[in-house]
Amino acid sequence: MRNDLPRGFLAATAEAAFRKAGRADLGLIFSELPATFAAMFTTNRFCAAPVQIGREILASARPVRAVVANSGQANSCTGQEGLAKARESQRLVAELLDIEPGQVVPISTGVIGEQLKLENLRKALPELRSSLGRRDAEGFTRAFMTTDAFPKFAMRDLALSGGSVRLTVMAKGAGMICPNMATMLCVALSDAALEREAWQGIFKRAVEQSFNRVSVDGDTSTNDTILGLANGASGVTVASKADLALLEEALTAILKDVARMLVADGEGSAHVIAISVTGASDDATAKIAARAIAASPLVKTAIYGGDANWGRIINALGYSGAVFDPAEVSLSLCGIERFRQGQPVNAEREAELAAMLKAKEVQIAISLGQGPGSYTMLSSDLGHEYVSLNADYRS
Amino acid sequence: MRNDLPRGFLAATAEAAFRKAGRADLGLIFSELPATFAAMFTTNRFCAAPVQIGREILASARPVRAVVANSGQANSCTGQEGLAKARESQRLVAELLDIEPGQVVPISTGVIGEQLKLENLRKALPELRSSLGRRDAEGFTRAFMTTDAFPKFAMRDLALSGGSVRLTVMAKGAGMICPNMATMLCVALSDAALEREAWQGIFKRAVEQSFNRVSVDGDTSTNDTILGLANGASGVTVASKADLALLEEALTAILKDVARMLVADGEGSAHVIAISVTGASDDATAKIAARAIAASPLVKTAIYGGDANWGRIINALGYSGAVFDPAEVSLSLCGIERFRQGQPVNAEREAELAAMLKAKEVQIAISLGQGPGSYTMLSSDLGHEYVSLNADYRS
Repeated sequence: MRNDLPRGFLAATAEAAFRKAGRADLGLIFSELPATFAAMFTTNRFCAAPVQIGREILASARPVRAVVANSGQANSCTGQEGLAKARESQRLVAELLDIEPGQVVPISTGVIGEQLKLENLRKALPELRSSLGRRDAEGFTRAFMTTDAFPKFAMRDLALSGGSVRLTVMAKGAGMICPNMATMLCVALSDAALEREAWQGIFKRAVEQSFNRVSVDGDTSTNDTILGLANGASGVTVASKADLALLEEALTAILKDVARMLVADGEGSAHVIAISVTGASDDATAKIAARAIAASPLVKTAIYGGDANWGRIINALGYSGAVFDPAEVSLSLCGIERFRQGQPVNAEREAELAAMLKAKEVQIAISLGQGPGSYTMLSSDLGHEYVSLNADYRS
Repeated sequence: MRNDLPRGFLAATAEAAFRKAGRADLGLIFSELPATFAAMFTTNRFCAAPVQIGREILASARPVRAVVANSGQANSCTGQEGLAKARESQRLVAELLDIEPGQVVPISTGVIGEQLKLENLRKALPELRSSLGRRDAEGFTRAFMTTDAFPKFAMRDLALSGGSVRLTVMAKGAGMICPNMATMLCVALSDAALEREAWQGIFKRAVEQSFNRVSVDGDTSTNDTILGLANGASGVTVASKADLALLEEALTAILKDVARMLVADGEGSAHVIAISVTGASDDATAKIAARAIAASPLVKTAIYGGDANWGRIINALGYSGAVFDPAEVSLSLCGIERFRQGQPVNAEREAELAAMLKAKEVQIAISLGQGPGSYTMLSSDLGHEYVSLNADYRS
């Protein structure tokens, strides 16, 4: 099938009523072969029980067979009881699939501080088993996604020297995009066969270029997780430099696509803000500047309101902590330069700019005029829908 | 008069139509005697023309005679033309008052990147002159305040060894509180006589304990300015250690009062959030933790929505960058402990807590369980009014 998951991966979903009845809130991915495992986890000092277990599995350097995902309870800040419940969920799923508990990676999203409803999981196991089968990426992502406005997935077939492999990425939620989950969860699947170190290296660099460059509200959750499973079911071994480079390029491209979908999703986000900082003394300086602009509520509300208020962008740049000479800075909004050498330019193009701000994507480009450093990232605007979604999401 | 400005200070206001006609948008404070001058300015790398001039005056170590304030144009990011216009405003006011231009401190607030309408200032000078006189603090602050929901001022009479002195603080604006001014401006006046170094020392420490501990949206403007003028008109010299301590204590207390008013002001702010972090390894660590919580949009929208979602607070603490052991952390909301030793406590008091969240002030108290370091700060919630005020404030 055109959109099937990569070879050797089955999927299942069930309604476990973790939070509300009548929707799929439990998802399972099963690999028929042991899959080489890569992962990146939240940097939050409080990490959820499933994140602790995921880290253990990654540290063990052993292949995995299954991923079990739930929404409703994040199983974060739940102490020893939460950890025990997460381990029990591994055991239940392993029993169902006749594999080892250590081969099951749990991922959770939902309210922090609530214990996982293990009894609901137990009751949903028969439904999970009966639904297990081949799925296309969209079908599975739809079941998996709970409150997302649209399914976030991307897929690519790659012709390598040894044959064709498939990469599929499925993600759910994040911040304003998905207030019912304090979290971004993402699973990347491939039927390529490759060494663990190579897979983890490719994976880490691809995440750095994609998910680590989007910001919705600057809140890094206790549960953020990105998993990569490569099960080799294609029979194609990826080992040559050229093949590894092709795989990395493809994974980076589809992770970028999915990361952009996260920012663009939801009633809450009317605009995607693409921020580019160039001319910094180094990349780290450019990153500091870009992050301050991406996080500024005054910039985000101005873009929401279609207000070409570039002064707020300059203001955020000024307090970012990035080092530069203010006299050398230039700023463009939607391709129109508005500030250069310490003063406004092109004031007469304000009306033209206002019209351009109606577009879904708004470009902010800053040159610091210092050196070769650069950084790009995506952010979202801040509007009434964000407040409505987040002011009252637990009730 | 009970609320008169300290002795030797006159004030004036005028309608200069810098932005809209029909409201006072130009304010003047005149000291009959040369006043010892203290000041603190924005740390934003882009600083407005009046901030550059204020820094020059502070560096000159000379007394000042007048402060001229305008709203409408921030005179920031306006290049050499902006600086020349700010200097011309000093010259015009000095001529009016028969003093030196270098004795006039200009402060501006409004839209970044617009040039000061000097012609409007020139036309308003006769009105300014005719309105110059003794004022009470409230009357002057009302004229000065433009769009604030209520006037922000505080006053205190202090009995010192040499007699009585008065302290008056008047402030306007800040972030969501006052979207028409990207800025917080504050003037502290006293009729005490004291040495420049002593006054600046007291002033700096008092600002650190008050204005530096409030956060509305984390955006530090290009124009933020706090000025302190002590003109000695009381005839009371403050020199002894005991008197200096009394003055510092009083100034700190009234600056704290006014800083709290800034956070509490505006339709946009339904709650003041008082954040206390204790038990940190040092004060700097406590400050890092408090600032992340104060800035988190997810925490701010939860408090706006009356949602006792303490998990978002723990989440912000976790990504703050502060170093601590998560197992030692405890968290109380409105005095009710909800998290301790890695897990939730007092879940049965949720309803009680929800009722307490309706109060104007919401207390968040965190203990990190590491050492003696602590930090407190005030923040505001984030609601629909913030979005409405900030999404479209230029039009």
